Amino acid sequence: MKISIGIDIGGTSTKYGIVSPEGKVLFQGSIPTQSEAKFEDFIKILASEIKKGLDPKEHKLLGIGVGAPNANYHKGTIEHATNLRWKGILPLANSLEDEFQVPVVITNDANAAAVGEMIFGGAKNIKDFIVITLGTGLGAGIVSNGKIVNGAHGLAGELGHTTVNYVNGRFCGCGKRGCLETYVSATGIKRTVYKLLADHTEDSELRSVSFDELSAEMITKYALKDDFIAKKAFEYTGRILGTKLADTVVHSDPEAIFIFGGLSLAGDLIFNPTKFHMEKHLMPVLRGKINIISSQLQNQSAPIIGASSLVIDMINEKESEIFGN
Amino acid sequence: MKISIGIDIGGTSTKYGIVSPEGKVLFQGSIPTQSEAKFEDFIKILASEIKKGLDPKEHKLLGIGVGAPNANYHKGTIEHATNLRWKGILPLANSLEDEFQVPVVITNDANAAAVGEMIFGGAKNIKDFIVITLGTGLGAGIVSNGKIVNGAHGLAGELGHTTVNYVNGRFCGCGKRGCLETYVSATGIKRTVYKLLADHTEDSELRSVSFDELSAEMITKYALKDDFIAKKAFEYTGRILGTKLADTVVHSDPEAIFIFGGLSLAGDLIFNPTKFHMEKHLMPVLRGKINIISSQLQNQSAPIIGASSLVIDMINEKESEIFGN
Repeated sequence: MKISIGIDIGGTSTKYGIVSPEGKVLFQGSIPTQSEAKFEDFIKILASEIKKGLDPKEHKLLGIGVGAPNANYHKGTIEHATNLRWKGILPLANSLEDEFQVPVVITNDANAAAVGEMIFGGAKNIKDFIVITLGTGLGAGIVSNGKIVNGAHGLAGELGHTTVNYVNGRFCGCGKRGCLETYVSATGIKRTVYKLLADHTEDSELRSVSFDELSAEMITKYALKDDFIAKKAFEYTGRILGTKLADTVVHSDPEAIFIFGGLSLAGDLIFNPTKFHMEKHLMPVLRGKINIISSQLQNQSAPIIGASSLVIDMINEKESEIFGN
Repeated sequence: MKISIGIDIGGTSTKYGIVSPEGKVLFQGSIPTQSEAKFEDFIKILASEIKKGLDPKEHKLLGIGVGAPNANYHKGTIEHATNLRWKGILPLANSLEDEFQVPVVITNDANAAAVGEMIFGGAKNIKDFIVITLGTGLGAGIVSNGKIVNGAHGLAGELGHTTVNYVNGRFCGCGKRGCLETYVSATGIKRTVYKLLADHTEDSELRSVSFDELSAEMITKYALKDDFIAKKAFEYTGRILGTKLADTVVHSDPEAIFIFGGLSLAGDLIFNPTKFHMEKHLMPVLRGKINIISSQLQNQSAPIIGASSLVIDMINEKESEIFGN
């Protein structure tokens, strides 16, 4: 069977899997990302774990796709990732090619999610769409005319660093203030809950939770239980996301926007204010034309499937290049 | 000689020309856009004027490219253009195909400018760039990986309708308020001059000019003569443009941004504040990496050359499709 490997490198854990051409995960696991002091040792452990699932008789390995923070698609490197312990420029693609002797393609996690949505998810017949990933930060994979927009420096889709408030916005890890992801992300909604707890006097079960203990899952759980502060936090988040999406939409004019990540599991609580405020601020001729929907790759294996789909996308690209010459 | 026809339909006049494969205008002219009550009569007059320059023995006509307001690239129609007297949906491509029996490709004027920049201007070796056109409104042609981003509804690049001020911004013809083009465009800078004349007490030659008489050229002329209000108007315009470009840049991550149109002739007066405020609000990792430069198609024939280059782009596309199958 022709298979590909998908790897999702996150700040905390690295997930990996062996994926069939139909997007079925045949084997998977995870290791802690930060346990090794040296990047080369991390790669060795990761490779040996993955090889446990590879059957040389059964499997024909086509390639490896990796979603990683600060991934440079053009160079195959991770560059100056603030969430990883290894500093500088890491030769990710070369290291994995040495281990497996197959082509390796890397991109940021949002682009991996977008390719996954296109090949295995809700965007199978859609040529122009955006996937917004809401995790520790906010990322976006922008697909235009069936292709990922990578950009001149491989940084297209960094919508988390558009600005919501230039004057006295929240401080962002990037060095700016007022960035979208300081409001709209798993971390952003925590900050919003704390702002609302400061502003309002209503009772809330969230008053007994410390900032460190608080999680986006917890806020979702309490919002679904009708907690005033938790519900208001989703309204606030959706208002800012929707307002900024009205600007995003006139850049690439997508048919649909998919929201990926834990926050999207709050359903109407996040989708209703997002849709309302996007429509309100949208160029009138586009009103009613753009769907905002939940990603259809919402499960534990989604990052692996997304990353593995990069291999399929790469092969499709190569074939069209060969025939194009 | 193989030639193409370029047509630029503006609110006031329609320019046309016959262009060589090297981008040289061999014949050109213009007619008023709004003189005919019927769209069909306008097309007839336009076609007969163009035919005066065509020599059936000398010229092999490859196709016609048109830049037009509210152009639907996918359908070849002009749709609900607020600046034209003909309402509804106008079958522009079909009408011209009937007259000339060659393929016709239409797009909005900003996309035509971007294709022109790519084929004949400053973007010959650039795969990711944006052309911002500053005229009555603000348009943008976004090129990603060497292709124009058209979008699902043919409305990609309508950056004039991103929002600068959601709360009490200037009213826009689109029905919203606070749109970028109400600040940054030939009309926008006129509104800014009037705001500044209201706010400030300094002398200015612009105090003797009515709003109807005032033009962007006049503001440029007085700014270059050191007029306080005119200079401040450019600063204000550049600040808003630069601030919004910092958001735009993280969408498609361009290598360069070209500014096209009369306002860009003010040089440093507009480029300095634009660059300063884009850099200030830009995601730090991108700082210093994106050039903002004047379009290199800055002359009277640029819209014709840009429109005619659509034909070359279409032929290149078709060839890659043929070989791609």
